[in-house]
Amino acid sequence: MTTRERTDVRRLPEKQVRDVAVLHAILDGALQAAVGFQVDGQPFVLPMACAREGDDLLLHGSTGSRLMRTLAAGAPVCVSVTHLDGLVYARSAFESSMRYRSATILGTAVLVPDDEKLHALEVLTEHLLPGRWAELRAPRAKELAATSVLRVALEEWSVKVSDGFPDDPDEDLDEPVWAGVVPMRVSYDDPVDAPDLAPDRPVPPHVRALLDRS
Amino acid sequence: MTTRERTDVRRLPEKQVRDVAVLHAILDGALQAAVGFQVDGQPFVLPMACAREGDDLLLHGSTGSRLMRTLAAGAPVCVSVTHLDGLVYARSAFESSMRYRSATILGTAVLVPDDEKLHALEVLTEHLLPGRWAELRAPRAKELAATSVLRVALEEWSVKVSDGFPDDPDEDLDEPVWAGVVPMRVSYDDPVDAPDLAPDRPVPPHVRALLDRS
Repeated sequence: MTTRERTDVRRLPEKQVRDVAVLHAILDGALQAAVGFQVDGQPFVLPMACAREGDDLLLHGSTGSRLMRTLAAGAPVCVSVTHLDGLVYARSAFESSMRYRSATILGTAVLVPDDEKLHALEVLTEHLLPGRWAELRAPRAKELAATSVLRVALEEWSVKVSDGFPDDPDEDLDEPVWAGVVPMRVSYDDPVDAPDLAPDRPVPPHVRALLDRS
Repeated sequence: MTTRERTDVRRLPEKQVRDVAVLHAILDGALQAAVGFQVDGQPFVLPMACAREGDDLLLHGSTGSRLMRTLAAGAPVCVSVTHLDGLVYARSAFESSMRYRSATILGTAVLVPDDEKLHALEVLTEHLLPGRWAELRAPRAKELAATSVLRVALEEWSVKVSDGFPDDPDEDLDEPVWAGVVPMRVSYDDPVDAPDLAPDRPVPPHVRALLDRS
């Protein structure tokens, strides 16, 4: 397959989006990605925490994991991120669907070198827990040694977005049923203190800001 | 690798769960799964709508897709479902994490035969849009022909659940930061009528029930 053939959307090609800003927005809204690799012909897909940095996607894992060992050795990888944005109630089961934004990235992961690891962990932490990094003590040497970060370039990718209403054929428009969309989103609930939390450790403003966003 | 080796959790093995009821609950709470397969050594991961039926997972796709053609030919598959349930604010970046429930299924997909397809579509539709099937007209023959359903047996699988609080070492408990969990969930917003909705088509009770659940 050529590069173009590998990432062209074949199903519902009208939903393919080639604007890199849309790819970035999908990744920036994701806390985890489904990372696919293969070992001896068997595909594996595992969830990993992720964060975009410029034209790269960072993936966070443990140094000792099979996934990390396989990927850091230069194995081909596929990273998939999907947001479900709504349920689409059409007038038939066939046209019923979901609103979604989905990104697929093909490439090869490379291990972030030791002298860039601290920065990569800051990017990941700030993406997952915005505002947290500056509050925390510096990582210890043994913690850094136990953590690996992979980097996948955003070069070969495809994005598919479904954000519309039911697309029923004319002959179905009089069906005696409601049709429309039920929007879905991720929301956050009130923070829960750790059971061993020391006194005078209030919930910080950046956590409150997270709740206000949802 | 032996079967056990392929699905034993190596990272944080204390989070592995072998109770099939937990697997079922994870799948029953999922509307989409990340489905991994490989073509010529390149892994691909694509999102597919899913629904559990007994000891099988049903996957919904289009007859013409590369994914469907590859999988229906008996290719090995890996299906991954992940729910993010919360952000875990520990006293260090190293211990910071997420609450999640994740399932990984290895196996081979088989095409649901034509005489079982209608039933499989009912199971999928009722899982994705509970209460909807009985309202809709019967699928047309050409619609059934354009739809494929795959079935993956829930035989070789692993489940990992992280549902606790930060697990900081004792020497970090006095760090001058808040620690705890911010729970996350999927919520539904008010239904939006299709622009071409005919008069006297009210939002049905089963859609209202979906909102009440969130």
